[in-house]
Amino acid sequence: MSTNRGVVYVEPGKVVVDDIPDAKLQAPDGRKIGHGVILKVVTTNICGSDQHMVRGRTTAQPGLILGHEITGEVIEKGSDVEMLEIGDIVSVPFNVACGRCRCCRSGDTGVCLTVNPSRAGGAYGYVDMGGWIGGQARYVMVPYADFNLLKIPDRDRAMSKIRDLTMLSDILPTGFHGAWKAGVGVGSIVYVAGAGPVGLAAAASARILGAAVVMIGDFNKERLEHARKVGFEPVDLSKGDNLPEMIAHITGSPEVDAAIDAVGFEARGHSGREQPAIVLNQMMEITRAAGQIGIPGLYVTEDPGAVDDAAKQGSLSMRFGLGWAKAQSFHTGQTPVLQYNRQLMQAILHDRLPIADIVNATVISLEDAAQGYESFDQGVAKKFVLDPHGMLAA
Amino acid sequence: MSTNRGVVYVEPGKVVVDDIPDAKLQAPDGRKIGHGVILKVVTTNICGSDQHMVRGRTTAQPGLILGHEITGEVIEKGSDVEMLEIGDIVSVPFNVACGRCRCCRSGDTGVCLTVNPSRAGGAYGYVDMGGWIGGQARYVMVPYADFNLLKIPDRDRAMSKIRDLTMLSDILPTGFHGAWKAGVGVGSIVYVAGAGPVGLAAAASARILGAAVVMIGDFNKERLEHARKVGFEPVDLSKGDNLPEMIAHITGSPEVDAAIDAVGFEARGHSGREQPAIVLNQMMEITRAAGQIGIPGLYVTEDPGAVDDAAKQGSLSMRFGLGWAKAQSFHTGQTPVLQYNRQLMQAILHDRLPIADIVNATVISLEDAAQGYESFDQGVAKKFVLDPHGMLAA
Amino acid sequence: MSTNRGVVYVEPGKVVVDDIPDAKLQAPDGRKIGHGVILKVVTTNICGSDQHMVRGRTTAQPGLILGHEITGEVIEKGSDVEMLEIGDIVSVPFNVACGRCRCCRSGDTGVCLTVNPSRAGGAYGYVDMGGWIGGQARYVMVPYADFNLLKIPDRDRAMSKIRDLTMLSDILPTGFHGAWKAGVGVGSIVYVAGAGPVGLAAAASARILGAAVVMIGDFNKERLEHARKVGFEPVDLSKGDNLPEMIAHITGSPEVDAAIDAVGFEARGHSGREQPAIVLNQMMEITRAAGQIGIPGLYVTEDPGAVDDAAKQGSLSMRFGLGWAKAQSFHTGQTPVLQYNRQLMQAILHDRLPIADIVNATVISLEDAAQGYESFDQGVAKKFVLDPHGMLAA
Amino acid sequence: MSTNRGVVYVEPGKVVVDDIPDAKLQAPDGRKIGHGVILKVVTTNICGSDQHMVRGRTTAQPGLILGHEITGEVIEKGSDVEMLEIGDIVSVPFNVACGRCRCCRSGDTGVCLTVNPSRAGGAYGYVDMGGWIGGQARYVMVPYADFNLLKIPDRDRAMSKIRDLTMLSDILPTGFHGAWKAGVGVGSIVYVAGAGPVGLAAAASARILGAAVVMIGDFNKERLEHARKVGFEPVDLSKGDNLPEMIAHITGSPEVDAAIDAVGFEARGHSGREQPAIVLNQMMEITRAAGQIGIPGLYVTEDPGAVDDAAKQGSLSMRFGLGWAKAQSFHTGQTPVLQYNRQLMQAILHDRLPIADIVNATVISLEDAAQGYESFDQGVAKKFVLDPHGMLAA
Repeated sequence: MSTNRGVVYVEPGKVVVDDIPDAKLQAPDGRKIGHGVILKVVTTNICGSDQHMVRGRTTAQPGLILGHEITGEVIEKGSDVEMLEIGDIVSVPFNVACGRCRCCRSGDTGVCLTVNPSRAGGAYGYVDMGGWIGGQARYVMVPYADFNLLKIPDRDRAMSKIRDLTMLSDILPTGFHGAWKAGVGVGSIVYVAGAGPVGLAAAASARILGAAVVMIGDFNKERLEHARKVGFEPVDLSKGDNLPEMIAHITGSPEVDAAIDAVGFEARGHSGREQPAIVLNQMMEITRAAGQIGIPGLYVTEDPGAVDDAAKQGSLSMRFGLGWAKAQSFHTGQTPVLQYNRQLMQAILHDRLPIADIVNATVISLEDAAQGYESFDQGVAKKFVLDPHGMLAA
Repeated sequence: MSTNRGVVYVEPGKVVVDDIPDAKLQAPDGRKIGHGVILKVVTTNICGSDQHMVRGRTTAQPGLILGHEITGEVIEKGSDVEMLEIGDIVSVPFNVACGRCRCCRSGDTGVCLTVNPSRAGGAYGYVDMGGWIGGQARYVMVPYADFNLLKIPDRDRAMSKIRDLTMLSDILPTGFHGAWKAGVGVGSIVYVAGAGPVGLAAAASARILGAAVVMIGDFNKERLEHARKVGFEPVDLSKGDNLPEMIAHITGSPEVDAAIDAVGFEARGHSGREQPAIVLNQMMEITRAAGQIGIPGLYVTEDPGAVDDAAKQGSLSMRFGLGWAKAQSFHTGQTPVLQYNRQLMQAILHDRLPIADIVNATVISLEDAAQGYESFDQGVAKKFVLDPHGMLAA
Repeated sequence: MSTNRGVVYVEPGKVVVDDIPDAKLQAPDGRKIGHGVILKVVTTNICGSDQHMVRGRTTAQPGLILGHEITGEVIEKGSDVEMLEIGDIVSVPFNVACGRCRCCRSGDTGVCLTVNPSRAGGAYGYVDMGGWIGGQARYVMVPYADFNLLKIPDRDRAMSKIRDLTMLSDILPTGFHGAWKAGVGVGSIVYVAGAGPVGLAAAASARILGAAVVMIGDFNKERLEHARKVGFEPVDLSKGDNLPEMIAHITGSPEVDAAIDAVGFEARGHSGREQPAIVLNQMMEITRAAGQIGIPGLYVTEDPGAVDDAAKQGSLSMRFGLGWAKAQSFHTGQTPVLQYNRQLMQAILHDRLPIADIVNATVISLEDAAQGYESFDQGVAKKFVLDPHGMLAA
Repeated sequence: MSTNRGVVYVEPGKVVVDDIPDAKLQAPDGRKIGHGVILKVVTTNICGSDQHMVRGRTTAQPGLILGHEITGEVIEKGSDVEMLEIGDIVSVPFNVACGRCRCCRSGDTGVCLTVNPSRAGGAYGYVDMGGWIGGQARYVMVPYADFNLLKIPDRDRAMSKIRDLTMLSDILPTGFHGAWKAGVGVGSIVYVAGAGPVGLAAAASARILGAAVVMIGDFNKERLEHARKVGFEPVDLSKGDNLPEMIAHITGSPEVDAAIDAVGFEARGHSGREQPAIVLNQMMEITRAAGQIGIPGLYVTEDPGAVDDAAKQGSLSMRFGLGWAKAQSFHTGQTPVLQYNRQLMQAILHDRLPIADIVNATVISLEDAAQGYESFDQGVAKKFVLDPHGMLAA
């Protein structure tokens, strides 16, 4: 194996690509593990949730190797790995999960009880998620590989759709979870808050679930224009602050069947000021009685950079009385990728879900990752896909 | 029909029993309705949500005739009523529902779209719920009677279980909704916040759903002692403010499988001060990752008596980041009684669900209703059942 | 109202269009009903299940007025009708349902308990389904109209999509029910048995539910060719009798995620001989372990024309041991149209579901109905839509 | 480890207890496995499905070591076992499952795709289920132990409830699966066909799920009398062949909400003659429209001892037309024990589910197993629990 390199968090606003240790079949606590594999990383994407760390909105420490959206090729496997072969192309769910605890047995792999000593749920390259090394790198280790990895059936087919398949590790199932939990089905009228990659993935998910109308709201004109191009109804939030009216202008009704919050805790209001509960409150306002609200956007327990003391502990001023009066349900949390990725893969392989175009997948080299972070932070309508070995560039 | 009498709201803290108009087959807007029936009220209960009005915590106006927990005998029926006969003993869901709109067709009778011009959802004798006349009275009119009413199969059996069956109109399905939506099932470890009648009904529901352990927390020692007597694990909140620890003391674990908020917006903390989000926040803390929280306790859009301006508009400071990190779901709203009451009736009729004893049903005459309100407001461990015609006293 | 005319069953193999009585607001037993409306029929389709009667495969009696797939305009309404207006364009579910019984309250409108004295479930113009007069006519009466009818929001939009919307009364929800109950979802590999209109509707439903691959099998080359044209994978059953192999040839695997039987009891095997259980047995063979089988195809309790005595009573030789070993579930019965039609309407109105083209909707005049029956019986790849007032021809 | 002994199938009608090889950490194909553990068997039960083999109704070969209902103590563990400790008391689901394939990831552990080369689904000591060695023995090996095993939290508590907990390995989840899939809930009226241990477990499951009435039908008077003693309504099938009428005599209605077939393919009719579809057909007759039928009773693909050629291949003459007309659903297959056992364990540990008394658990020594088989085959109302090390006898 050649020397490993990866994206390292240095300080708020700064990441670098540097040499990092070789991937090894061992757990964060140093134990050797027979259930792991080492992957040559084929693609690895920059995620909006990485930005939270890089902006200094978390307690992430310098030196953290980033990256939890990984597709790779198996190049080494532990003694307990039975279902995978060297050379398999696999999609890695961003959730690290053991496949053996109560939550994993029930499919709740987003809150695995054993891979993170500090709380439920693990991930690669993320603060407070168990210390698993990130995969914005040339090589990465995946534990409990038989359970966690989704094999793409055919190598050639895999490589021919790799820009789409790379979205299976996180944003596509994340958006899908939001749409699914919001109860989107055939004929639904849907509103998605946020036109970034997760919002677009939620919109794409709503569409393949059969939605009749998919609106997507944002302040960012470039992203709205892209959303329009790929077939969604843009809602330009800079044009006013009466969301029900803006929706009614499109559909004839101020309420939707299902709403998805793809923004999370760094939400801003019409004023431009951060208002962490504004999107949640808007979702209650626009969702019909007995409707459901899917919340794939991240809300956190600690936010050192928050606007007020309450928000620093994750407390938000929610119009809960309104939601209650409308008998709504609220669904939160990290998506359990394994519940969705096989079926989404099938949809991609059979040309039903052109997610790369929808999120505007843009391939760059691993060495250019820092520019990718900066550009993404400025709100370009792109989803950056890192190509550590030049396998896509070729 | 003899002269009608009913419970009338006079001013904060005061209700009287007075002569009221005869029940008529007409809607609040004066239209004649062929789908209604007039009931001789057999039983009608005082509800905790009536207390919100009587305490002046709503915009209810003087003169309102109260009462939405009604069991009755059909004494007159409109021309469109096909499935009911004069003499039938029927349970009236507190939700007024048309049975014809989109929500009713889907079973969401708690948010019927047509019976209340001001918002989704109707009820008898309640502020802002469509103007349907209350049933703490000798006679009451029920619209869309074929759809709304649940016939108790046999009159003698009905009267022999009437103290239990009277709970079908509201608190039993309300408690059941909380337990059901919280995901309570066989073997669940459950915590119910609030040992009033709805809390006890939620606990009873959890038990018949197969829960392994049902804890119930309150500050009121009389209610806790009653909860213990009827088989639940009391949690005395006056003894400390570390709820996870108190739960762990009982079960060995600080988290439960399912939590039910049967308190609502008038929640108080350990200090005795009103803290409207405290129960919601505790539920997030004690519910396991991937767990669900059922919220039958009432939260409102307007609370003139609230502790602060935010709460006056139903905005609460919720630790939503915590719930999100634990991938929890939150289920709110008025219970759709019709989804549950037939099955709960069967459980009562076949001696599986002694709800009258569990909530300590206490029969008093209609004329004593004011004393019942006062006594209930002071926190006695009783559920008052009014007996307008002395049919139970006999 | 002008004189009524309708399609009348005369004898096996023969229907005529004749003068029939005016539509009246009365039930089959002669009772006046305030909850009914009279419709001017805008469209009404010929259904495969009509063919069972016309072929003499049921106990239908001469004189029966046929037709249960109806879209109409409200021209008269009873005193209890509150949600509809004269002039509304409405889709009529083929199930007659009261909206008030236990089954209807739970959404199981296909087995309403009150509209048919002889068994659960009613329909218009069908043997043994309650005696409700058929709607292949100029005018028809619909009972419990507020509950049963789905209003198309806008008259002009309704008429511009009428060839699609006319499929909402039966075959689209029937096909959808099959797909839904078979567990079709995003990425599913699906097989539909039967390329007639219901099979095509099931295939269209599978596609809008997100299926990755939709195969459709039949012996009829014209129908297979049409299925191919509208985007499904045809499986020509005349080419061999090894269905798993034929499927594997398309997808790489002999099993599918979900299978739908859109054939029913008049199924034939490769030999051409009727074998009523052959499709059911094939579905067990090709469906994966833990898979589900949706069975919208009709199976009957009495079949006077059956191949053997067992089948005459609806007894079929099923390889149930195979299904059991694979832990499959089987879902039967008439679709409850109201559970699906609103959402399917939205999909049609927003250009997501071109069902008219998929089933090859072919408009003919009411007076040409007999030719339509004959042509359909010969297996043309068309779905005939009758146009009693020339509203579509215009 | 002392010498191993176990129950060995010799020929139709005969089993013996004999010396058998030591349990080893290896798969049926001889591979060493790091994910397995070796258990000292604490209890292991004789199952009705063992009887099918011993009666010669399967293709089981002489020499097969029987036993798939196992509770044990971990005495050795492989290198990949992370969540279990030596000394843990564990319940073994009878399904062998890998925890890594598509079916296991979805919870369908009854049809694991990797543990049995010949078909989906594996089990210990059973013909055609993958060759995993049976556990009616002193020691047994369990593969994929972290995934498969359910740890009983506390050793002393485990041993004090061991007669109940031993039912978690098969019959309790099997009966529960039947009740759950039949849609049993609070207030249900339920009929269970078969008063053997699985029927009683289904009845017990129905009760803890909240059923209002649980009837249980059989020809065996001793079993019916036992069913009555433990609180169910016996239906003596020897008294007549009109099941709907017998049910109506108890409940007032000839139909039930939910029916469970706990008999399977060796069903007999009133005549005493084997009629493999008779129970299935009765279930369709007595289950209400839109009802569900749970079928935990075993149906097979090959039955060399069947009454006719069709049944020898698992083909049964089912009145499917009747089920279709009633819009019923049918649910088959081996229960996925892991979906239910944790919750059922909690119910047992908290005194909600006295399953040992309900099935009349009767402890005998391993050496007496042959007499247990014989006695059980004669229809005694007992469930035999083998005690290989005298741990219960003490």
